[in-house]
Amino acid sequence: MSELILSSVKEFVKREIEPLAEKIDREDYYPRELVKRMGELGYLSPLYEGLTLYDTVNIIEEIAKVSGSVALIQDAQGELVTEPIRMFGNKEQKEILDKLAKGELIGGFGLSEPCCGSDAGSIITKAERIKGSWIINGRKMWTTQGLYADIFLIVARTGDPKLKEKTLTVFLVPRNKCITTRKIEVMGNRGTGTAEVELNDCEVGEENIVGELNGGWRVVKYALLVGRIAISAIAIGLSICAIEEAIQWSKHRELFDSKLIEKQGIQWYLAKSVANLYSIKSMIREISKYPLDRLFEIEGKISALKFVSSNVAENIIDTALQIMGGLGYAKGSKVERAFRDVRLTRIGEGTDEVQLSIINKVLMRHGIDKILNE
Amino acid sequence: MSELILSSVKEFVKREIEPLAEKIDREDYYPRELVKRMGELGYLSPLYEGLTLYDTVNIIEEIAKVSGSVALIQDAQGELVTEPIRMFGNKEQKEILDKLAKGELIGGFGLSEPCCGSDAGSIITKAERIKGSWIINGRKMWTTQGLYADIFLIVARTGDPKLKEKTLTVFLVPRNKCITTRKIEVMGNRGTGTAEVELNDCEVGEENIVGELNGGWRVVKYALLVGRIAISAIAIGLSICAIEEAIQWSKHRELFDSKLIEKQGIQWYLAKSVANLYSIKSMIREISKYPLDRLFEIEGKISALKFVSSNVAENIIDTALQIMGGLGYAKGSKVERAFRDVRLTRIGEGTDEVQLSIINKVLMRHGIDKILNE
Amino acid sequence: MSELILSSVKEFVKREIEPLAEKIDREDYYPRELVKRMGELGYLSPLYEGLTLYDTVNIIEEIAKVSGSVALIQDAQGELVTEPIRMFGNKEQKEILDKLAKGELIGGFGLSEPCCGSDAGSIITKAERIKGSWIINGRKMWTTQGLYADIFLIVARTGDPKLKEKTLTVFLVPRNKCITTRKIEVMGNRGTGTAEVELNDCEVGEENIVGELNGGWRVVKYALLVGRIAISAIAIGLSICAIEEAIQWSKHRELFDSKLIEKQGIQWYLAKSVANLYSIKSMIREISKYPLDRLFEIEGKISALKFVSSNVAENIIDTALQIMGGLGYAKGSKVERAFRDVRLTRIGEGTDEVQLSIINKVLMRHGIDKILNE
Amino acid sequence: MSELILSSVKEFVKREIEPLAEKIDREDYYPRELVKRMGELGYLSPLYEGLTLYDTVNIIEEIAKVSGSVALIQDAQGELVTEPIRMFGNKEQKEILDKLAKGELIGGFGLSEPCCGSDAGSIITKAERIKGSWIINGRKMWTTQGLYADIFLIVARTGDPKLKEKTLTVFLVPRNKCITTRKIEVMGNRGTGTAEVELNDCEVGEENIVGELNGGWRVVKYALLVGRIAISAIAIGLSICAIEEAIQWSKHRELFDSKLIEKQGIQWYLAKSVANLYSIKSMIREISKYPLDRLFEIEGKISALKFVSSNVAENIIDTALQIMGGLGYAKGSKVERAFRDVRLTRIGEGTDEVQLSIINKVLMRHGIDKILNE
Repeated sequence: MSELILSSVKEFVKREIEPLAEKIDREDYYPRELVKRMGELGYLSPLYEGLTLYDTVNIIEEIAKVSGSVALIQDAQGELVTEPIRMFGNKEQKEILDKLAKGELIGGFGLSEPCCGSDAGSIITKAERIKGSWIINGRKMWTTQGLYADIFLIVARTGDPKLKEKTLTVFLVPRNKCITTRKIEVMGNRGTGTAEVELNDCEVGEENIVGELNGGWRVVKYALLVGRIAISAIAIGLSICAIEEAIQWSKHRELFDSKLIEKQGIQWYLAKSVANLYSIKSMIREISKYPLDRLFEIEGKISALKFVSSNVAENIIDTALQIMGGLGYAKGSKVERAFRDVRLTRIGEGTDEVQLSIINKVLMRHGIDKILNE
Repeated sequence: MSELILSSVKEFVKREIEPLAEKIDREDYYPRELVKRMGELGYLSPLYEGLTLYDTVNIIEEIAKVSGSVALIQDAQGELVTEPIRMFGNKEQKEILDKLAKGELIGGFGLSEPCCGSDAGSIITKAERIKGSWIINGRKMWTTQGLYADIFLIVARTGDPKLKEKTLTVFLVPRNKCITTRKIEVMGNRGTGTAEVELNDCEVGEENIVGELNGGWRVVKYALLVGRIAISAIAIGLSICAIEEAIQWSKHRELFDSKLIEKQGIQWYLAKSVANLYSIKSMIREISKYPLDRLFEIEGKISALKFVSSNVAENIIDTALQIMGGLGYAKGSKVERAFRDVRLTRIGEGTDEVQLSIINKVLMRHGIDKILNE
Repeated sequence: MSELILSSVKEFVKREIEPLAEKIDREDYYPRELVKRMGELGYLSPLYEGLTLYDTVNIIEEIAKVSGSVALIQDAQGELVTEPIRMFGNKEQKEILDKLAKGELIGGFGLSEPCCGSDAGSIITKAERIKGSWIINGRKMWTTQGLYADIFLIVARTGDPKLKEKTLTVFLVPRNKCITTRKIEVMGNRGTGTAEVELNDCEVGEENIVGELNGGWRVVKYALLVGRIAISAIAIGLSICAIEEAIQWSKHRELFDSKLIEKQGIQWYLAKSVANLYSIKSMIREISKYPLDRLFEIEGKISALKFVSSNVAENIIDTALQIMGGLGYAKGSKVERAFRDVRLTRIGEGTDEVQLSIINKVLMRHGIDKILNE
Repeated sequence: MSELILSSVKEFVKREIEPLAEKIDREDYYPRELVKRMGELGYLSPLYEGLTLYDTVNIIEEIAKVSGSVALIQDAQGELVTEPIRMFGNKEQKEILDKLAKGELIGGFGLSEPCCGSDAGSIITKAERIKGSWIINGRKMWTTQGLYADIFLIVARTGDPKLKEKTLTVFLVPRNKCITTRKIEVMGNRGTGTAEVELNDCEVGEENIVGELNGGWRVVKYALLVGRIAISAIAIGLSICAIEEAIQWSKHRELFDSKLIEKQGIQWYLAKSVANLYSIKSMIREISKYPLDRLFEIEGKISALKFVSSNVAENIIDTALQIMGGLGYAKGSKVERAFRDVRLTRIGEGTDEVQLSIINKVLMRHGIDKILNE
């Protein structure tokens, strides 16, 4: 079945995403209609549609080959919002899953805050229980689709801040007058509606808690585990796109009496890139064959994947740009866009440094085999 | 005197360039008035003004600390156009030097062509002598300031193409109906008027030849030697800017119970960056103390400088961006701009690969000491 | 079954190999008795014993964790000599397989020559057919176990040298007065009997051809495909050994008021190493699950594995040595030995550069998917 | 004068050091006679002989081009022992300077201890004042020439250990029954008599204090500042040696239908190496032109030099080895030896990590200009 899915995706991507990709980037254009189309075809939340993680990864990769922005939208909608609700939501919450998967509702994941970036355990957005309701106040940063989201998953403090991750709760918060969103303009992955989200006395009920009260960390972590695999797939897709453009160029470009592709220096650039790319492909393949409910166990592997793949991808795309020279630096080449897009993958959903600290924790607690062995 | 110049430059840069830097980048805005101001103060063509190469390098560095674009404009106007005319021009040609240095005339350097990018010896723009005039036809790419230039230095073929560099001649061509320029939009160093320049039957006289007939390669090479030192200064300026912003951020940002700057991992990032930065500073200092007429002799050193400094700078800025995280990826940070700007320095005025091939040639011809020894 | 094998191997390695490892290195001591013991237990030629490639890789890794030298001996005996005979040998030749697998006969693989190193297609050792016999003359370099080998696989030219790989034939040549071997002393993987092998009028029969006449390239290639996987397993084993020693050290060593392991800089060194190690583990796992008869198809993947794993391993061990400081540089630490041993893995059985050229060939012929896709 | 010195050194090195280099390495042979010869000619302690730091650096580089071991001996004798006595010693102590400079007395610098490696401020070797004498007890590690030294500079604690660097004193301790030395065998720079030095109730007088009581840190720091420049010169010398051997090899070696040197991939390896080498040459040239009494001021620059040059050198030698392939891995090539020797330069006289922490300290205290500006 995977093959079948893959070829439909490829066709869809070529027909409906690729033609929009440049506009999305240049005009910082959020492709609302495209999101719906992806929803209709089941590409927005593949896990909800019953596809495997393996297939999901392939879908994301295919999308990222033409647009990092659309792939990031898919990640935000499918992996960061829909998936944790599917996994941890109560019956009522699950009723919106269909609309999320269809792209009829747009979702935003509100974790990062101005105070604390990578240090998610220190966030200060607060939810206070007042007369059976929860009143939420705070500010979130870097929320993908934040500008357009109809519902938000908001991570809030519901107890003593000194208890860090242990007093966090995830709330499902529909957009409402209490919410103000402000655009954050970024270097790449443009058109994704990245925003700052401010919550002023947002009132929600007990039933809006996703997962357990003070059990928000588990929900967040699950979203990030799936999200980090998705980000890695984006990094891979972007780098394949870049290297393929560079190969095409090298095959046609003549310089110093021969085709670029015939020069040993260029051949080695390409071969190294492909060798490294294969290493991250085999990592993501191995990881995406794990059942979803074992992702917590392989946290160290996932952080390793995220760390290595985003770094390798940045490097490959940098090389591809160098091969293309001025053309790679000019607007209009895919490589130019990929160069800016890929830079996010070492920051979003946990920076390099956060991944290293997770790997270190696993290493200290469980030893090296936990990460290396199957 | 150097100290005095430096402090005036710093003040000017802060007062007049910095406030424009973001607008230049965002709006792809060519700062015509600023160029004139730089001319008035003698910063546009310091070598023409009698300053040393050493001072010139410092001026460029200071400018690049706030705007890669303005530094590139300075490079194009001062090093690529004014300087070769000063060095090789005839009396008549030298009459425009003052206007170039004052920024009253804008100049464009027309070397690269669609056919051949780095392979300058293969260019096909042709100049034919017809009844005592030269008729020039061809297309040039990546001409900085091309959109706004009043005069162009055009490198053209004036003999058998098989003789490569030996049948090239440089012509001073005033803008004229025969010239069409088309904007090329690029990732960074925006607002510099980068353009494609098309010449259709441009007629100029014998007196418009800069240097000797068929002696264009020497003129081009000289321009590139000075230009490569300038590009290296830009790379250095950009990286100092980025690292200083990252240091400021690290000093104020608190994460995981301490300031970023107190974390060993971040300290090592910064210390490595500064160590590498010092290595390229000492290179450029050594090189910029050579008298201009010895630059041909130290071609290998200059290529080494260009190669190492642009790579080191890219790396440092990438690190600075990583330290700043999301903020470094968002518009508004200097690091975001520097990250895009610096990428040009590995491509412009000879790619990494061209520098390596020059170094190799020197190495084979003269041995390692020619490059290593003072 | 794999688990069972693995635990027996681990025990054997600890009991019988580890105590000899230092002596093998220091005294350049070839462990003849140990080889026999490995043969008795089935670790010398696991593929002949009916184990899978996957199990074989695990066995090699375990051995390399305590001795790169013994792992290389295993590679030479099991993968480079026994395996191609098992795959391509005739009935008569296969009769010695049992003795090879038991370590009763020692084998040497004679491919490289002084003339041509990596350029195996150009070798000049010649076999001439004279009265129904083949007379072989030539010199081979870098033959592991060459000093002690009882039989050799000798790759020789049997036709027009201009036809390169197409006129090579592999001969099974028993040691004999016609063979002189001279020790080559090397930096690491000592005690493996690396030798130069000279053949002076060695006479063998038609029945000593392994595979087809002029079909030697296929035999060589198969040996190298299996051998490159083995070398990669050695690189992995060595790097695990080094990193584990560094972790142990860091846990006990106190410096600047805390344990080394508590310093963020050191944690990041370790975490990066483990992340990269995981990437090569997942590569080798994926590759070693292919059936042996499909190895020719995945030549590009295998070269990618060999290239990436040997480079990553060198890097990891370098980092481990740095963590241990002076102790890592002193004789007696495992890291000191691993540092020297691992350097071979980027050279033996095809240098980095040979792997890159193979990857490039696959890339040009079949496209990127051939290497990236499962 | 520098040129003159240089050519004498070159000749001496070729005639008297080069022929011994391999023996020194293989047999771990300390070249006692050679040390005397170097002393006679004034190469052992050039600073004492009145030469400049600039000349000293050149001398060390020349020696390191043929033997890292002899260069390290020079460093230990000339920079670590003789120089601090010359700078801080009292009249009586200075009387032995001549014998040290002539190589009639061998000196050992005793700083590192088993307890604390890089953390020199924590050493525990103690000197206690008893009836007008000082009684010293403790153990020192990694003392170059320790096995053969006639006198030692011993850094000892002379006050509250909590005061760290502020209660250290340097003593001049002649060899004596109270001192036991044990050989430490190392990977490279062999034949330098590296030893563990144990002091049991060594009694010395007040007049044996070098510098001030509790002012030892200043003496140590000075020795290390000079020593780090020396180590950098060794790194540079080793890498020039390696790259020159690789160039020679590439010029003669034919593979795949052309000379190695004609292959673009190899040319780029070499050109990159030379470019990076030039960067560290310009650093060391700049630094070695500072007067000795200003070295304290440029501590950050010196750490940057040490960090960058040792890393660059390791990399270059690794590349040179790769170019030479098997031959580079075999005993007898200079590259094989340089590969082992250079690894020390990232550890000795302050590891990479110590340099980074020094750079960081300077950066935080004085800002980036302190390191970057002249």
